[in-house]
Order: sequence, then structure tokens, then C-alpha cells
Amino acid sequence: MERSLNSEAIEVAIKQRLNSLTKPVGSLGKLEEIVIALGIAQQKIYPDISQRKCLIFAGDHGVTAEGVSAYPSEVTRQMLLNFAQGGAAVNVLTKSSRTILEIVDVGVIGEAVPGVSSRRIRSGTHNFLKQPAMEISELEKAMEVGASFVDQNFSLFILGEMGIGNTAASAAIAAAIIGCAPSEVTGSGTGLDPINLKNKIAVIEQALLKYRDQPQSPQAILARFAGFEIAAIVGFILESGKQNIPVLIDGYIVTTAALVALEINPAIKRSLIFAHRSSEYGHKKILEYLKVEPLLDLQMRLGEGSGALVALPILDNALRLYHEMATFESAHISQNN
Amino acid sequence: MERSLNSEAIEVAIKQRLNSLTKPVGSLGKLEEIVIALGIAQQKIYPDISQRKCLIFAGDHGVTAEGVSAYPSEVTRQMLLNFAQGGAAVNVLTKSSRTILEIVDVGVIGEAVPGVSSRRIRSGTHNFLKQPAMEISELEKAMEVGASFVDQNFSLFILGEMGIGNTAASAAIAAAIIGCAPSEVTGSGTGLDPINLKNKIAVIEQALLKYRDQPQSPQAILARFAGFEIAAIVGFILESGKQNIPVLIDGYIVTTAALVALEINPAIKRSLIFAHRSSEYGHKKILEYLKVEPLLDLQMRLGEGSGALVALPILDNALRLYHEMATFESAHISQNN
Repeated sequence: MERSLNSEAIEVAIKQRLNSLTKPVGSLGKLEEIVIALGIAQQKIYPDISQRKCLIFAGDHGVTAEGVSAYPSEVTRQMLLNFAQGGAAVNVLTKSSRTILEIVDVGVIGEAVPGVSSRRIRSGTHNFLKQPAMEISELEKAMEVGASFVDQNFSLFILGEMGIGNTAASAAIAAAIIGCAPSEVTGSGTGLDPINLKNKIAVIEQALLKYRDQPQSPQAILARFAGFEIAAIVGFILESGKQNIPVLIDGYIVTTAALVALEINPAIKRSLIFAHRSSEYGHKKILEYLKVEPLLDLQMRLGEGSGALVALPILDNALRLYHEMATFESAHISQNN
Repeated sequence: MERSLNSEAIEVAIKQRLNSLTKPVGSLGKLEEIVIALGIAQQKIYPDISQRKCLIFAGDHGVTAEGVSAYPSEVTRQMLLNFAQGGAAVNVLTKSSRTILEIVDVGVIGEAVPGVSSRRIRSGTHNFLKQPAMEISELEKAMEVGASFVDQNFSLFILGEMGIGNTAASAAIAAAIIGCAPSEVTGSGTGLDPINLKNKIAVIEQALLKYRDQPQSPQAILARFAGFEIAAIVGFILESGKQNIPVLIDGYIVTTAALVALEINPAIKRSLIFAHRSSEYGHKKILEYLKVEPLLDLQMRLGEGSGALVALPILDNALRLYHEMATFESAHISQNN
């Protein structure tokens, strides 16, 4: 029944209930906006996010050969082992928030990791300074893999990623989509020193120049620079939006994937909630371009969905307040004069 | 044993462990700062906040006679009934965060409310535009009541307040302590329209003028303008600091109480964690004066400790990550080149 309501009617109905609760009108600030956003995303007056799943897509990047990361590619697979053993930030944060966690390997280098869902397109992308990171057919496959993880048994998805080199890939994608200088969206990633950061920016500048006369569709840009994990996230976001399941967007890399997804289908914006502003240089620029103000700014830059998972209790509390608070009428409280 | 360490040694030890965890150095941003702040506040290398209590101090304000609030004084007591019945924001938020809640009536008007701890100094303060809000002896009593609620069985306190008119009281206190124009720290409270806000500012300006030639010690300013709930919170903060128990500071009114407590004893700053920036106009100014950057900015302005309780899961997750994440060594992960 609720599905037949349009977004404006949902917003009006949610605001009406929010204003009946025992608090000054509007005094829950962004928490009220969250309830409305989740209601519109789910097309429900009483949204629910109790069934949630965090998906970490992982892949390796050929461009690491250019010295764009502080850590070697082998760390991607080592972190997958760490996820499987329960020792990473994402394990701690999903456990505390009663969130199911699934790790999906869409293109990591090395032996498959037990406990990780293996959907490898290929072991690592090509070095985009030499050739496109992937074929268009591989891009389509990676996006389909991502989309296949959208599941109606869940009411909220939290997306994260792991992939040494993927801030370089994201910076190239963001610069190409936004049409800005690579230096405006390129940061130190896991901890580059200033000299290596300069090199990283130069690599991205050269790469953009190299493909200057090629097609600049979102798909072409993705195939050129993305990792398989970024492509899978784009596919996931597009499909989740179609299925009215909200997605909590993490930091720099997931936001870049969202940027591409929104270029492909702007209508899915209503299903996205932006969790935090990462301290990775360039995230701010992308968020401004998207005209979104995320919930948190805690100077985190860890990836793995960690910023989104730290924001998750805010969503939970917003909905609890909306569902559980007394109304002025039920509590017999005098209204505002 | 840990008590013998000084704050610098605690900070060094905590940073050492943080840097051994499977994440880029510093990548948890403010979450790392929280762990250090809690460690220094508790004088422990492994701080713990599992035993937490939220105290809501409540009182009425004579200055409401001047039309400084959008709601009548009777709403203070009505909200106490709502707290006792479990229907307010603070009930929902303490329940979800496994936090014990106690409501303390230090000066509400009307019959005592069952389920609320009654420690009334008097039923409402005087109208500070006509005479000081309270006697110095009453101030001392209210501060002692506050201090008496500090309890070594708890490892974290969350402070909140309820009192129609207390944004006016806080604005007068903040302007007097900071030495700024009332218009810089006076906002709409629970929702004044622009004309009534102008009146509220004028009332505070007149009050400040009236007492211009009187003593301006923090205690004199408190007795002149405070509510009993604000005085109790000042007493609580001072005592909790002495006992090394951290306090999570809520919005505009609790921050004003912290401002006064810090004037009285600057050393207690290490026990304070500022939870959020309220959208009440003037909170920003007070936080800047205190040189603190709170964790959240969600445009909340509800009071009742609600902003602090929404920030609490961030503290919990910061400590969980610190305690539970694997180290590079235990997870066999290559270090940064």
C-alpha cells in the first residue's frame, strides 16, 4: 500500500509525525532529515533499517607499478585474510552494529582467501598509464557482479572497499568526470609523503592526457581507470537504487563510485545517504560537486566502510526517536504559544 | 598502578598501540583523539566507558516572565513527567546506548514528579531582570547537589538539562563570562520568532547593564543569572574532573556550565569531551572561546543530553577499535614502505 505514495506525500506524512513528538519543531536537525531520506529511499512512511549488510568489494590495481601507494599490492590480499580472521576495523564495527559482513573479491592478486566470496574478473587491473585498466566487457561483468549482491532481504546496505592503489584510480575517475585538475582531487591515500604525492598527481595528469581524445562517457572513464571493486560498487549502487534499498556511502572511493553511478542515472540519488567526509584530500571537492553534506567529519581515512559504519548509529537513533518518542498529545504537554 | 603514569606517558602508550593496529597510521582521525582523551581523563592506558550514566538536571527560571521562551514554564514539569514515563528523546537514547538515566529536580515549579530525584533548592529562580536569580548560599547548595551525584561506580557521565528559559539564562552567563554582546550568544531557544528573539536579547542586555558595577566572578555571575540546574551542572563538572571521570558535554546550556566550571578550575578541561555543536545560535561562539571542536554538527537543539547521547556510539566504537583490532604483527601484514 505504501508503495503507491509519492515522495512528496511521504515527506509530508513523516514531517507531520516528527512535529507531533515531544520536542521543539525541527530540533532534531539532521536526524529529522535522515528519517525523511530513508522514508523516500524505501518509499515508506515508517522506514526500517534493522536488516543491514555491509559489503566490502576488493580488487588490485596495475597502476601501483607507478609508485602511487604507500603500501605494496600484496597488502590487499593480506587485508582480506585479516577481514576473514575478524581483525580489521570493519569486523569490529559490523559486530557492534549487528550488521552482516560479506567480503567480495572481484580482482585481487594471489591465491583466493577462504571466507571471502570469490567473483574475480581478473587478478588486478592493467596499469592505466600504459593501457586501459580493463576491457568494456570486463567492466560490464564487474558491474553485474556488484548488482547481483543487491538483496531484498536487506533494508540498508553499507558499502566499503579494499584495494591498494584505489585512491589513485578514484582520483583519475573524479578528475575526468568533474573536469578538474588531478591535483584538486588527489590525496596521500594510506600515507604518501609529499614527494610521492607529487608523483601520484603527475601519473594521473599523464594518464588523463593520454586518453584526452578518447570517449568520455562514465562507462569509458570507468573502464579506463577503475578497479574491479569500484566498477562493482557502481553496479551495486545503480541496482540498489532501482530496488528502493538505501545505501550508506562511505568515504573517498565509494563516493567516487557514487559520482559515476549518478552520472549514469541521477534518479538513484534519493537512495544514497552520505556518511562522512574523509580526510583524504579531494573528498570534499567531490561532495561539493554532488551538492551533498555528509553526516560526519571525523577526519577518518581508513576505507573498508569504516566511516559509514561509524555513522550508522546516527541513523539507528534517528529512526528510534521517530518511532518511539511520545507525542505532545499522548504526554499531555502544552504546545508552543 | 596506572594512576602513577602522567598524561604524556599515557598519550605515548596509547599512540603506540594505535599505530600497531591494522590501518594506516592516523587513519581513524578523531576516533584516535577520543581514545587518547578518555585515557588522559581516566588516567588509564586502556580507558573504559562501559558503566555510564546520564544525568538530567532540571529547574525553572523566573526570567520567563519577560517572554523569553516559546513555551511556558509549566512545560518543564510536564517534560519531567514525560521523562518519568519514558516518552522523551533522552529515554529513547539512553535505552539504546545501555546508559542509566537519572532525572534530578533542583528547582522545578509545581508538585514533585514521581520517579524524579527531588533535590529542590527552590521552586524556580527569581527573574534576573528584577533581582539576582538566587542567593550565593543557594548557588553553593545547588553546586553541592550537583557534585553529590558524581559516583565512582561509573566510568563516563553524560550531562543534560531541562528548564524552560534556560537558553536566556545561559546567554546572560556566556555574555558576562566571555565579555561579548548578548546578541552574539543569544538564539531562538525552543523556537522564538524574530520579534520575540529581539526582546530576549534586549532583556539580557538590560540585565547585564543592571549588574554592570557588581562583582564579576564566575560565582557571582552564576548566582545572578543561572538556573539551579545550571549551577548543579557546574558543581557536577568540577567534582567529576577532580575524580578523573570523563564527562560528555551536550549542547548550548551544558557547554555554558562547562565554560563557568573552566573559569573556576581550568585543570578539569582534560575530563571534558564536547559532543556536538548545537544549532542554537551562540553555541559556536562559546565553543570557539573554549577552543574546542566538538564531534558532531547535526543541527540538533533539543537539549536533554540528546546531542551527547547521539555522539556516544562514536566513543564506544573508538574504544572498540582500539581494544579489538588486530595488530600488523598478529595479522602478518606488510608495513608501509
